[in-house]
Amino acid sequence: MTSHHELLTKAIEALHARTFYAAYPEHPAPAIYGETADADGQAKFKATLGNRFTELKQAGEAGWAGQEESPYLQQPLQVSYPVFKVETLIANATSAFATWRKVSKEDRASILIESLERIKKRFFEIAYATMHTTGQGYMMAFQASGPHAADRALEAVAAGYEELSRVPGAALWDKPMGKFNVQLNKEWRAVPKGISVVIGCSTFPTWNSVTGIYGSLITGNTVIVKPHPGAILPIAIFVAEIQNVLAERKLDTCICQLAVDTFDKMITKELAEHAAVKLIDFTGNSMFGSYLEALPDKIVFTEKTGVNSVILDSVEDIDKVAANLAFSVNLYSGQMCTAPQNFFIPEAGIKTPTGTITFDAFAEKFVANINSLVDNPKAGPFVLGAVQNKKTCERVEEAAKLPGKVWLKSRTFENPQFKGARVATPVVVEVDASKKEIFSKELFGPIALLIKTQSTDQSIALAQELANAHGAISCGAYTTDAVVREKIADAMALAATPVSFNLTGGIYMNQNAAFSDFHVTGGNPSGNASFTNPEYVSRRFTWVGHREPVKA
Amino acid sequence: MTSHHELLTKAIEALHARTFYAAYPEHPAPAIYGETADADGQAKFKATLGNRFTELKQAGEAGWAGQEESPYLQQPLQVSYPVFKVETLIANATSAFATWRKVSKEDRASILIESLERIKKRFFEIAYATMHTTGQGYMMAFQASGPHAADRALEAVAAGYEELSRVPGAALWDKPMGKFNVQLNKEWRAVPKGISVVIGCSTFPTWNSVTGIYGSLITGNTVIVKPHPGAILPIAIFVAEIQNVLAERKLDTCICQLAVDTFDKMITKELAEHAAVKLIDFTGNSMFGSYLEALPDKIVFTEKTGVNSVILDSVEDIDKVAANLAFSVNLYSGQMCTAPQNFFIPEAGIKTPTGTITFDAFAEKFVANINSLVDNPKAGPFVLGAVQNKKTCERVEEAAKLPGKVWLKSRTFENPQFKGARVATPVVVEVDASKKEIFSKELFGPIALLIKTQSTDQSIALAQELANAHGAISCGAYTTDAVVREKIADAMALAATPVSFNLTGGIYMNQNAAFSDFHVTGGNPSGNASFTNPEYVSRRFTWVGHREPVKA
Repeated sequence: MTSHHELLTKAIEALHARTFYAAYPEHPAPAIYGETADADGQAKFKATLGNRFTELKQAGEAGWAGQEESPYLQQPLQVSYPVFKVETLIANATSAFATWRKVSKEDRASILIESLERIKKRFFEIAYATMHTTGQGYMMAFQASGPHAADRALEAVAAGYEELSRVPGAALWDKPMGKFNVQLNKEWRAVPKGISVVIGCSTFPTWNSVTGIYGSLITGNTVIVKPHPGAILPIAIFVAEIQNVLAERKLDTCICQLAVDTFDKMITKELAEHAAVKLIDFTGNSMFGSYLEALPDKIVFTEKTGVNSVILDSVEDIDKVAANLAFSVNLYSGQMCTAPQNFFIPEAGIKTPTGTITFDAFAEKFVANINSLVDNPKAGPFVLGAVQNKKTCERVEEAAKLPGKVWLKSRTFENPQFKGARVATPVVVEVDASKKEIFSKELFGPIALLIKTQSTDQSIALAQELANAHGAISCGAYTTDAVVREKIADAMALAATPVSFNLTGGIYMNQNAAFSDFHVTGGNPSGNASFTNPEYVSRRFTWVGHREPVKA
Repeated sequence: MTSHHELLTKAIEALHARTFYAAYPEHPAPAIYGETADADGQAKFKATLGNRFTELKQAGEAGWAGQEESPYLQQPLQVSYPVFKVETLIANATSAFATWRKVSKEDRASILIESLERIKKRFFEIAYATMHTTGQGYMMAFQASGPHAADRALEAVAAGYEELSRVPGAALWDKPMGKFNVQLNKEWRAVPKGISVVIGCSTFPTWNSVTGIYGSLITGNTVIVKPHPGAILPIAIFVAEIQNVLAERKLDTCICQLAVDTFDKMITKELAEHAAVKLIDFTGNSMFGSYLEALPDKIVFTEKTGVNSVILDSVEDIDKVAANLAFSVNLYSGQMCTAPQNFFIPEAGIKTPTGTITFDAFAEKFVANINSLVDNPKAGPFVLGAVQNKKTCERVEEAAKLPGKVWLKSRTFENPQFKGARVATPVVVEVDASKKEIFSKELFGPIALLIKTQSTDQSIALAQELANAHGAISCGAYTTDAVVREKIADAMALAATPVSFNLTGGIYMNQNAAFSDFHVTGGNPSGNASFTNPEYVSRRFTWVGHREPVKA
């Protein structure tokens, strides 16, 4: 087994090199995780249903509640969690802060990495919990909520540990003054900000929250995890395991608390506005994110929403491109913040080595590839998963009424495992580049707009303008022309949007890797923070330097 | 001569080690700066008076204006500067951005360090310009506006250069997928935010502005320097020299512009609120700073005001302590953001090896030391300097009416060089610890409050509470007890306030050194940023990562 220290060291190295590194294997293979791991995890998940979640080590609850529903069953999970008053959570966090801030960074890192090692043993259980709260397919639910989330958490620990190590604990400051020297003993303390609130989202309940949780914890803050009321169980397991390790180390388990609420009585604003809360992490809609960013005297890290573009100029192999993009659109039914929405295609068509593909010919290929994936019973249901929120289905229906040719209507399909699943396949609509009001907002869900532009230059200009004005988290681009490539790279860089160029095969623009990709750049309206650049962790504490003359 | 590269390397090393380092000698010695440097600088300054400042390489001015006044002469300097419309400044900065952002970090560093080498030749001229705008004494004006400011600027260049170098330009991401590998070529670009506005203050026109100016420039932003209308000339010389080097390198001189305004027509808000302005640096009052911090979609770095405390518990040598603190209060007539204001003294007195010094006995010693410095014609006028703003004199007068014993009244003194100088010596007032409303705000200027507390514990609690609620930039503490020392160090660290312990002799709590001290921590209401921690520069640009599959 790799030691905690070795994991930390490798993670820090990977952060610098930004080459591939994964501490937690992403494949749910029996050879890796054990022959019975999957079945055991599923059984454990099923045993939780209809019951109280009693794993938390937090006392003083005001009651029990939980309103999660499975998008696959369209039935409540009937799991209930202890519910706490905000004042109780704050009092617990304040009291725990006094001890946690004094724990060394080495011990904090060891505790946090140990919690990830425990969570690793529950990846399958977390996967089923994720499926039945978010609607993700099995493979994504396993990877995103399990190993990828754990990698992201480890990355935050590594980034935080490194920033805490940046300044020496003490130094002799020896200033020559001519006839004598002024000598000061200086010491620097990394002082945590205080209480951190991490607000989760309904689609990626662990992946999007762990960076904030582990980033705040490694830097000495106490954390209150406020999950989306629709997706609690996956992150509840993380919090429970963190608390288990804290308890074993004889530390206050309220160093990390779970703060469950219900749709009818949300506590997010009360928590966020509390004077004792100094740090806020948020993933979710832009309106609430912007409200949080404007709260005075808080450090706020947001991932909000964006409008992601694909620029199609010229390609090597149009079939591979259409297949790759069709997969991106189908993947988790377009419910990823990195999913493409606007496909900019020149009216003159897309250049290929064997001639130009017209706009219509590409549309047909794109639609055919979407259908072929949806209709493949061995792939479609697992790639698309289910739709987390009813409103997404309504949005998909509305999209078919947009003024433009509907190339593909959304429909349902049968999930062999879950007959009652809430599903919706992508709707594909053609929109003219002049109708900016239609495509200049996020249409969350399986909605793809094919936008006919005058030229690739217009495509680039529109993609850049949208990213600058409305945010973008990802961008796809296809070009075989080095000059056009640099034009896109430069224009989208100015709009703080990472570009995936010429992706074909088994890698998609939706995917962001730990230790290598900065997820959300923080440079456009889609969010003000990036996983996991130095400021993502360094703003969670303050350097304070004391000094004193050296005794003669 | 030290090469640019060597200076940069040494500065980066010093940033890590945080030991003493100075690139620019702080002593105005002829042996260092040349026999005629002082006289030449003074002559150059005098030649500027009554004239247009024509050194700037900025075209399209709307007129000429300037309202600086010498606190030493209480006369206008009659220097006028080109005045530009905000739209002109923004258009120039936007146009210059296109070229500056493409200049390599190596070239940017070289240009910026070369500008400092040019500025070094004008330190004396800048010193006289600083004296006659801020009222600083000659030595402080030379050091703070010259070598110390240049060191701070170099520090910002070094910190920025290092952050720009943190992520590799490119890397191969090679992910094993079982039967094959996914290989992506990744590249990361440090994308500057855009236009940066640096808003200066009237007391430290270069020292407080250069970190923002050089921090924004090294990271590829174009900068608009908006000086305080009362203190333009010192920073105008910096900007002119930056423009000189840019011109020699055939670059757009509007990469760094000076934006002069007048008291009757301030352009600060118009500039700050302009949509094209992405970065704002500000030094000044808390109300305006908080307004800037709340502007949406801007990255704002502030240094506002604080209430600085001195905690007196026990001392080795009370006379040395009283002398040190008296100097701190007299230095630049208390017009430093780091100057002490509230002196917390236990009612039982201050412990010394030879018995307890009563509150009254300390007050007498403190007053005697202030008077002795003021009345020393070879030191007083030079240490106290002049009062920048008439309102400070009014505030000092008001302070004498506070409900409490006035231990020392403010008075004037004769400056042998400048008979007409606006001067005010410190007023010292005793205030009871219960009268928090009196001492819980900044009383800018030579105002010292001696606050009688029940115990050192109450002194610590009050100093911490004030720093948390109203901000603090510095703190002095005197104790010979290791337990009390740690109690103070911990309490003030939690309030994000650096403590200078047991200072005596030639080092004062007012002083902050480049490459070693974090000036303002960013962790309490005195400001949201610190010179020069990584986020101070890393938030001035965005990491954007593009990727593309390796060609088979």
